Amino acid sequence: MTASDGTRRVRIVEVGLRDGLQIEPRTVATADKARLARALVAAGIRDFEIASFVSPRAVPQMADAEDLLAALRDLGPEVELTALVPNRRGAERAVAAGVGGMVVFASASESHNAKNLNRSIDGSLAAFAEVAALGRQAGVPVHGAIATAFGCPFEGEVPVAGVVRVARAYADLGIRRIALGDTTGMATPPLVRQRVEALRSALPDVEIALHFHNTRGIGLANVMEGLALGVDRYESSIGGLGGCPFVPAATGNIATEDLAYLLAECGCDTGVDLDRLIEAERLAESIVGRTLPGQVSKAGPRLRRYALDDARTAAG
Amino acid sequence: MTASDGTRRVRIVEVGLRDGLQIEPRTVATADKARLARALVAAGIRDFEIASFVSPRAVPQMADAEDLLAALRDLGPEVELTALVPNRRGAERAVAAGVGGMVVFASASESHNAKNLNRSIDGSLAAFAEVAALGRQAGVPVHGAIATAFGCPFEGEVPVAGVVRVARAYADLGIRRIALGDTTGMATPPLVRQRVEALRSALPDVEIALHFHNTRGIGLANVMEGLALGVDRYESSIGGLGGCPFVPAATGNIATEDLAYLLAECGCDTGVDLDRLIEAERLAESIVGRTLPGQVSKAGPRLRRYALDDARTAAG
Repeated sequence: MTASDGTRRVRIVEVGLRDGLQIEPRTVATADKARLARALVAAGIRDFEIASFVSPRAVPQMADAEDLLAALRDLGPEVELTALVPNRRGAERAVAAGVGGMVVFASASESHNAKNLNRSIDGSLAAFAEVAALGRQAGVPVHGAIATAFGCPFEGEVPVAGVVRVARAYADLGIRRIALGDTTGMATPPLVRQRVEALRSALPDVEIALHFHNTRGIGLANVMEGLALGVDRYESSIGGLGGCPFVPAATGNIATEDLAYLLAECGCDTGVDLDRLIEAERLAESIVGRTLPGQVSKAGPRLRRYALDDARTAAG
Repeated sequence: MTASDGTRRVRIVEVGLRDGLQIEPRTVATADKARLARALVAAGIRDFEIASFVSPRAVPQMADAEDLLAALRDLGPEVELTALVPNRRGAERAVAAGVGGMVVFASASESHNAKNLNRSIDGSLAAFAEVAALGRQAGVPVHGAIATAFGCPFEGEVPVAGVVRVARAYADLGIRRIALGDTTGMATPPLVRQRVEALRSALPDVEIALHFHNTRGIGLANVMEGLALGVDRYESSIGGLGGCPFVPAATGNIATEDLAYLLAECGCDTGVDLDRLIEAERLAESIVGRTLPGQVSKAGPRLRRYALDDARTAAG
């Protein structure tokens, strides 16, 4: 979206409290999650995937979804707090908790969907019809996410038709915003182009969001391709919180502060204050108790100046 | 460059043995450097910045430049082993050691040049005239590098005119290949575009190479911009060896294996075998005794498959 002054507006959606924390072995206290969300709001973030209304037994880290939403109720409607819902039961909980939007999620590959949701893609889509109906009834917007949209860790390549198929089913339910999820870091610039173009061609009225992981180091290169394609909505996690369920040493989502830095340097208006975002990143590190992979939080803003005697000699 | 079959050829220049190791506190044995170079050659790397003929007192890690070149003499002319030379004395050593190319280097900002080379930019350029003369006489090609080409840690923004000025001086010495160095990770896609376009406009016959650091996480986003501009030569270090002289926690050069992965996925032919490059990265980690920041070496190739029971559940 381009503002009247010609500046391109790009939305950053913070998913660290959901996708990022989900893989953390230690359960994070609701109060810490709320503090982190507030620090991110103070930095200018307005869009959050904040929780997941799945079974607390399956994902203990998300068991406090209701409490977290209650703790953030005062943030008001200009902050959109969405949550993942896998089925009618989750949607009922989410609506009762006062969620700002519900995100249904299926994979573009059967084996990942089975692993993640313990049912077929069609089974998931059938359940989402109930979620969509409940959302309409309750006046809560429903959005869609497609996991393994750029490849599947079990099946390998995922045909673009599989992605379009799920997106069409979402659109048939009235969904108008769909995030393509790079679940295990298999997205590449040509795949981003192919999938975004296919989705636009099939569903011109749907807004596309891109959700990249930095598992193979090229998450922000994929953002560059998304920007070239005119995509204006990107999901990331503060500090690069999160990981890959297969590779303990691999990083997770692209880091919000690195994304915000790149977007600002490319002339986009994200509404985010980088210094405050770096403060939020420090808070995230203190909450999870370790250094996170994001880089800008370590190096600081681009024009940070050093005194001549700060540096070790570095030819070249 | 595009091959007859339409494939774009892109060169990866490995600078880990010079720019990467230079910041390592512990001196790496010549035999280990040679082993790493050979592992990289086995992976298909053909272009190296292998050493620096500077004062051994100033940069002890580079004190074995002659020995390293001697240890690699059998690699033959299809492997280009270049070295940095700051002045006539360095050039004499480099030529005597049988270097495949000499790289002169000045900064685009006075204070960085003074810090790095203990003289003014003009003073450096005067010394390079002697290097160029020696190179012509000895039949050794001379290339140019421009440090702080995208910003200076002491001065902040570096005017594009400062970069063009050094490049013109290089071209006047007969230099036909110039690398723009992002010394402390201040390059951004718009600055890449601006500087590449300015250099091409001023010096259409000069080949441009791009040397990015990943200090702020956007090194490969800058490569994407370079690719869009038609630049076909990139410098990187295996594993992302190296660092920033100011920020101990910050990463150094972009990682060769992540760059090679991105280029291959974008359809470019680099001549590099990713599996063997990952083996070379493991060797680099064992030599420096720590985990390096490159990502592909941790996550593995894109189509690596997992068994269904490998994964922890990861909704979304």
